[in-house]
Amino acid sequence: MPKKVPAVFMRGGAGRGIFFHERDIPAPGPERDHIFLSVLGSPDPFGRQLNGMGGGNSSLSKVVIVRTAADTEVDVEYLHGQVSLSSAIVDYSANCGNLSGAVGPFAVSEGLVALKEGITVVRMRNLNTGDIVHAHVPVEHGDYPNSGRYAIPGVGGANAKVALEYLMPGGGCILATNSARETISGVDVTLGLSPLATVWTHGPQINFPTSLSPQEIDSDLRIMSSLDHLRRLGAVRMRLADSLTNANLASPKIGIVSPPTDYVALDGKSISADDFDISARVLSMEMVHKSIPLACAMNLAAATCIEGSVPFEMAKRSAPGEFRIGTPSGVLNIRVVVKPNATGFPYLARVGVDTSARRLMEGYVFYDPAETSA
Amino acid sequence: MPKKVPAVFMRGGAGRGIFFHERDIPAPGPERDHIFLSVLGSPDPFGRQLNGMGGGNSSLSKVVIVRTAADTEVDVEYLHGQVSLSSAIVDYSANCGNLSGAVGPFAVSEGLVALKEGITVVRMRNLNTGDIVHAHVPVEHGDYPNSGRYAIPGVGGANAKVALEYLMPGGGCILATNSARETISGVDVTLGLSPLATVWTHGPQINFPTSLSPQEIDSDLRIMSSLDHLRRLGAVRMRLADSLTNANLASPKIGIVSPPTDYVALDGKSISADDFDISARVLSMEMVHKSIPLACAMNLAAATCIEGSVPFEMAKRSAPGEFRIGTPSGVLNIRVVVKPNATGFPYLARVGVDTSARRLMEGYVFYDPAETSA
Repeated sequence: MPKKVPAVFMRGGAGRGIFFHERDIPAPGPERDHIFLSVLGSPDPFGRQLNGMGGGNSSLSKVVIVRTAADTEVDVEYLHGQVSLSSAIVDYSANCGNLSGAVGPFAVSEGLVALKEGITVVRMRNLNTGDIVHAHVPVEHGDYPNSGRYAIPGVGGANAKVALEYLMPGGGCILATNSARETISGVDVTLGLSPLATVWTHGPQINFPTSLSPQEIDSDLRIMSSLDHLRRLGAVRMRLADSLTNANLASPKIGIVSPPTDYVALDGKSISADDFDISARVLSMEMVHKSIPLACAMNLAAATCIEGSVPFEMAKRSAPGEFRIGTPSGVLNIRVVVKPNATGFPYLARVGVDTSARRLMEGYVFYDPAETSA
Repeated sequence: MPKKVPAVFMRGGAGRGIFFHERDIPAPGPERDHIFLSVLGSPDPFGRQLNGMGGGNSSLSKVVIVRTAADTEVDVEYLHGQVSLSSAIVDYSANCGNLSGAVGPFAVSEGLVALKEGITVVRMRNLNTGDIVHAHVPVEHGDYPNSGRYAIPGVGGANAKVALEYLMPGGGCILATNSARETISGVDVTLGLSPLATVWTHGPQINFPTSLSPQEIDSDLRIMSSLDHLRRLGAVRMRLADSLTNANLASPKIGIVSPPTDYVALDGKSISADDFDISARVLSMEMVHKSIPLACAMNLAAATCIEGSVPFEMAKRSAPGEFRIGTPSGVLNIRVVVKPNATGFPYLARVGVDTSARRLMEGYVFYDPAETSA
């Protein structure tokens, strides 16, 4: 008999994932991970995950496990699992900024929170990081409406707007060193730490036109390899790796920031330099990200508030508040509140991003029982 | 309230699609098409279909509508809809060879046919073409097992084997002209007609090493443009277009065939020239297909049985029976029965292919009601 388990397939931000209630799946361990791998279609030597729900890239190979919280600080807790395409591995080391936007709508539709017509604030704890996130979820006629007029970069169509507020993500540490600016190989950089470690490089110094498309950058092997070298040097400087070769691929990321210039987004729309505050291109897993990892965007917005940082120098405006990042897919808005701590050093008190989510399918997902016992 | 409709998400061959019972959806027309577009996430200026169930390419942007048949020649009838990524269009002009492999398992699991333990033969009529297809579907404990040990090119993992037999597909017409071989621009070609029009070119004559990977071929703009030119010339010769510029992109395809040589498949496996009978690379929508469109493979197998054709010359063996095609993703097996008609001209009496399918998710898919009334 086919094996199946209740699940919901959701888009959150520019990612998609399978959402499970914790009560419906086995406890953490190999059996649980096997189900996730089989459901997503991994590992796949062809890298496409045709034999499962996955989409053949890291943004589309994710699971989220949700439960009601045991304490009263939050309503729900969620754990993100990154399902590898190439190996039988589910990685729980990081939260997913994109899918975090779908947890609130999931909680609303699944009856995990008390509803308030208009906006229901779902208080969430991410179990990968411990971060507290508040999701402002639209509610109409007792449910998440699943449709609306809010569009986000990289996603076709429009849906209901979900506003996320992160409270002191990653403990609020914006920088990895005590300096707003470091010099590595003659290039000025800012070493961002939370919520995702990122080396922010000085676009004009490395003569990098951020108006280029991801494909144009990807195909320039010279710039790609020199950026990866700089990234590895940054990893060592941040003490995330003890040598260049030991720096892992997933973290830190490297991002190039530049002052705004006119460019054409991936959907063909012309974007004026007046429409955003800073231009950014982030490399993720040796490819230019088609928009920007949300956690990198949060760090960038925070770093831009710190005088003397590279983002501070590149940005058209750098006061806390609403901050607009020009990404290959369009403009992303971030709200950021940076405060000084007891010693006067700035920390990230709160960061907000407007995103959207869509419930795509609900019911049961199937997994292969034959491999379960392996 | 979110709008939803019962559906099953299935893989068939190297494609995925959303399967509907005809009873659950509106009659043919704009409302039905709107639901399909919204469910898949189309149109999407970013081409990724993140806002729906689609996978951002034509093999993963499909729907299938299934109903029990009114007559006794078949058990079920099915209609394939190709959902455009870029426009609000659902195209019903062709069957899908890949998803045809999932219709039998769908019919078994949904109780649309009388079951026989072991193998249930599901007799199907494709409503796009009128073709009759018999699916030999494994049944265990009263259901399609959804797991097994049969692997197919381009798909990770293994599933239960589903054998398809097409009876006189496309009326059995193998060639578009009365000749097994034509010469276009000095190149010998065979103009295949059914089930999918394809210009088969002579690999050695155009000095085309079919051992190249799809990426290597795609990036050679000179060969890609000359092949597309040849394809358009073939379209005019076949009377599928009245001029080169009016030849549409979807049909005919163009394929390059060569004698077998050793090569490395997309999953990194070495494949020996001894393991297959003919090498083929097919261009589809201006890209090299990662395996081969199933309908092209059927035409190729049939054309190989015709003495004097280009595939006949390229193939290591060309007698009717089991026939092995070397594709970028690995070796595909096709069974073919070619017979002479009343005037002695060969026609395709029957073609069989072993494929596999997987039920991925069952339940309800969501669509956006706001656009429905538009």
